[in-house]
Amino acid sequence: MVDRDGLRPGEVATAAPAASDAGLVFIGRIRTPWTDRAACPRQGRRDGPVCRLELCPPWDGALAGLDAFEAVEVLYWLDRSRRDLLLQSPRAEGAPRGTFALRSPLRPNPIGTALATLVGLEGSAVLVRGLDCLDGTPLIDLKPDRCAFSP
Amino acid sequence: MVDRDGLRPGEVATAAPAASDAGLVFIGRIRTPWTDRAACPRQGRRDGPVCRLELCPPWDGALAGLDAFEAVEVLYWLDRSRRDLLLQSPRAEGAPRGTFALRSPLRPNPIGTALATLVGLEGSAVLVRGLDCLDGTPLIDLKPDRCAFSP
Repeated sequence: MVDRDGLRPGEVATAAPAASDAGLVFIGRIRTPWTDRAACPRQGRRDGPVCRLELCPPWDGALAGLDAFEAVEVLYWLDRSRRDLLLQSPRAEGAPRGTFALRSPLRPNPIGTALATLVGLEGSAVLVRGLDCLDGTPLIDLKPDRCAFSP
Repeated sequence: MVDRDGLRPGEVATAAPAASDAGLVFIGRIRTPWTDRAACPRQGRRDGPVCRLELCPPWDGALAGLDAFEAVEVLYWLDRSRRDLLLQSPRAEGAPRGTFALRSPLRPNPIGTALATLVGLEGSAVLVRGLDCLDGTPLIDLKPDRCAFSP
């Protein structure tokens, strides 16, 4: 049951300030098997299907050395998400919680992060397992898993 | 030894496209003990000093329930970073590597991510250990550690 703003009982939205403090550049697109939200897994599985991170020029020139890692951190832009919720009930289950106490895609800066298993490189594409996002999701960053740099 | 563009031997920069594909809103500022880059640790330590994530309104209204978690993922904006490097040599050690094979702050979208230990909430501030960023760094997101949602 939602009201005319699309809110469930107890959810709270804010008059969000303009998102103009910094700008992002999309460095590529993510190809996954999931074309609608209902089909997306709630969280990626390291034994899930292979997904392709397709880098666009000039950023495909920044992959040298990535193949030495087993796991990569992937950052992507959840471009269909509303950005004004303070309290939300992801599944209408119990009391609403603060946006920052949830990994919901609805957030002031809708950036998704995933730790994925590196399968390999194929030209300007990076193949990984462990994602949960929609096909066509904009890619914004890619880094080696931080475990590789433990002190 | 750097050239007049500030590049070390073998580093490659690109004519970076405008960063206008999406916009960010800064949700707060991070207070840390480090006021210049040379003093920052290379990577945060879970037993490092307590740092404060100071949320600004209206986003301080989105913290309800966060105190139930032991670890949080923190996303921040590395606002002093150049964004045009494809190949870089972080410490001039050996061959340059692709930007995406490094966790360097210099990247097309200079977003830092850290897994931090939650120490507690104090009004509109969140206290954590495990960061490595400069004092005053803009905060862009905060989520429970994904481990809490393993399938």
